[in-house]
Amino acid sequence: MTQTSTLKYDDLIVVDSLLICNFERTILEAMHQAGITVANCTCSVWENFTETMENVARWKRVFRENADIVLHVRSVDDIHRAKREKKLGIILGWQNTSGIDDNLDFIELYAELGIRVIQLTYNTQNLVGSGCYESQDSGLTDFGRDVVGELNRQGILIDLSHVAERGANQACEWSTKPVAYTHCCPASLKAHPRNKSDAALKKVADRGGYIGCTIFPPFLPKGTASTIDDFVDVIDYMINLVGEEHVGIGTDMSQGQPWSFQEWVMHDKGNGRRLTTFGELVFPKGIERIEDFPNLMPAMQRKGWTHGRIERVLGQNWLRLLNDVWA
Amino acid sequence: MTQTSTLKYDDLIVVDSLLICNFERTILEAMHQAGITVANCTCSVWENFTETMENVARWKRVFRENADIVLHVRSVDDIHRAKREKKLGIILGWQNTSGIDDNLDFIELYAELGIRVIQLTYNTQNLVGSGCYESQDSGLTDFGRDVVGELNRQGILIDLSHVAERGANQACEWSTKPVAYTHCCPASLKAHPRNKSDAALKKVADRGGYIGCTIFPPFLPKGTASTIDDFVDVIDYMINLVGEEHVGIGTDMSQGQPWSFQEWVMHDKGNGRRLTTFGELVFPKGIERIEDFPNLMPAMQRKGWTHGRIERVLGQNWLRLLNDVWA
Repeated sequence: MTQTSTLKYDDLIVVDSLLICNFERTILEAMHQAGITVANCTCSVWENFTETMENVARWKRVFRENADIVLHVRSVDDIHRAKREKKLGIILGWQNTSGIDDNLDFIELYAELGIRVIQLTYNTQNLVGSGCYESQDSGLTDFGRDVVGELNRQGILIDLSHVAERGANQACEWSTKPVAYTHCCPASLKAHPRNKSDAALKKVADRGGYIGCTIFPPFLPKGTASTIDDFVDVIDYMINLVGEEHVGIGTDMSQGQPWSFQEWVMHDKGNGRRLTTFGELVFPKGIERIEDFPNLMPAMQRKGWTHGRIERVLGQNWLRLLNDVWA
Repeated sequence: MTQTSTLKYDDLIVVDSLLICNFERTILEAMHQAGITVANCTCSVWENFTETMENVARWKRVFRENADIVLHVRSVDDIHRAKREKKLGIILGWQNTSGIDDNLDFIELYAELGIRVIQLTYNTQNLVGSGCYESQDSGLTDFGRDVVGELNRQGILIDLSHVAERGANQACEWSTKPVAYTHCCPASLKAHPRNKSDAALKKVADRGGYIGCTIFPPFLPKGTASTIDDFVDVIDYMINLVGEEHVGIGTDMSQGQPWSFQEWVMHDKGNGRRLTTFGELVFPKGIERIEDFPNLMPAMQRKGWTHGRIERVLGQNWLRLLNDVWA
């Protein structure tokens, strides 16, 4: 923790624990210039094994062609290296387990290729368990229990953001390592299938986990009328609920994506039933775009946060989590 | 090179530059007990991307479950480690490029997963070039030229054993690194679509490459009537042709495979036209099974070979090649 009386943004490890942007050069530059040290970038949502491997292969090319500003993060050391070399560290993560088809052994291949975060389900039922939009919450499957075990063995972080509550709680209990909600808000502030009950949030935190508060408008109490200060109030609520050692920020920004992409993620398997309608995606005033990321610290300071709290929420809590899970 | 007056088999790096066995525990034990230090084991023949990845995932499990005697070789250091730890080192290799489908970027994923040898074509035409059984030898395709470049960039050894002569010669010329015929015999000793002309063999050797002589009966001058001493005569012929720094042994043994497997490899794409008929696979007397591998050194000694020649052919030439290509 920084002990000096003035906190400098440039000295901090700054984390976004979930983005799902169109990660082209301009977006990578924006993230880099916004001082983000490391970001969990989604590279699989509805994609099957081959399609996900195609995405991973494309990312390897992105790393190669943007090596001047970007670095593939596979370890906590890599995050420190990104900070040292003033680069944007990228964690490759999934929001579903469709990328392994029905083959448990594929997890090891992805681990070797540098996938470091995997969400168990995306919105609906898959082979692993129920998603948060599924009408019947049957928790995790037997295969899902095996997947949790294999993710533990491979040191991959388990993300539960889009998992239905029963399975999320099971994963919490079965996992030998801390788990995360990388991007959500408290359901007690805004009732929404994607927001989490106080009990569920506490369960994750009590087991050493992490909760990334999101600025995704439909999940915020004030929706598209929110400001960055309203968002910090949400973080404050979360901190009061679970403790400041377990809270961070996962914006869920999708900058650069066309509307067809939003339609794809709003439908079951990408082309089935509509599951939800986001409406217009206007992010909170003051943090409407990636470029606004540096506005977060002043907003926290306006709220009278200690240096320690700011450092933890902006990055140290995520770092501590990965230290525990990736080791 | 060993300088003592008595050569001890146990001190040597012993290589088989191609096997395509059913690599179950009993086979791995046989290879291990036969004193093989490192073997290039085929894990893709006709398989497409997903099927090949399934094979690789299965191999990871094999490495894990047989870690007491087996070690996955990704570097020359790993080969020395295998020798030191008295384990069987396994190189994962392909006999085709069907495993990348049509995606050049997949090569990098496989490189990361530890694939270290890739043959450009298997018997017939594929996206990369013509195989040695194709009626029209049109050489390598434009995509094939890109594949050669990417294999070079990734430091993967290019195998040409089943490639038709024109494309094999092109690969020789285009590759910035030495290439190999991991398993073949000289066509001047036995005319066969799979055997290589003196000119083709010289071309590979002249560019620092490697030729593994095979005991596969259909390619041997005396066929199934061969003995291990006849096989050493074949190696002698090869050495006289290309020099003793470029010759090794690639048995092409398929121990443990059912006959349905042989049918699969004898047909185009595994289920199309029959390309050849192996007949009964009786390997040379004295080296009929993997267990007989230690008989090679005495046969070489009967032929009056120097210690240096024995060491080179049994392993050092392969080691030198990988040092050049994998670096």
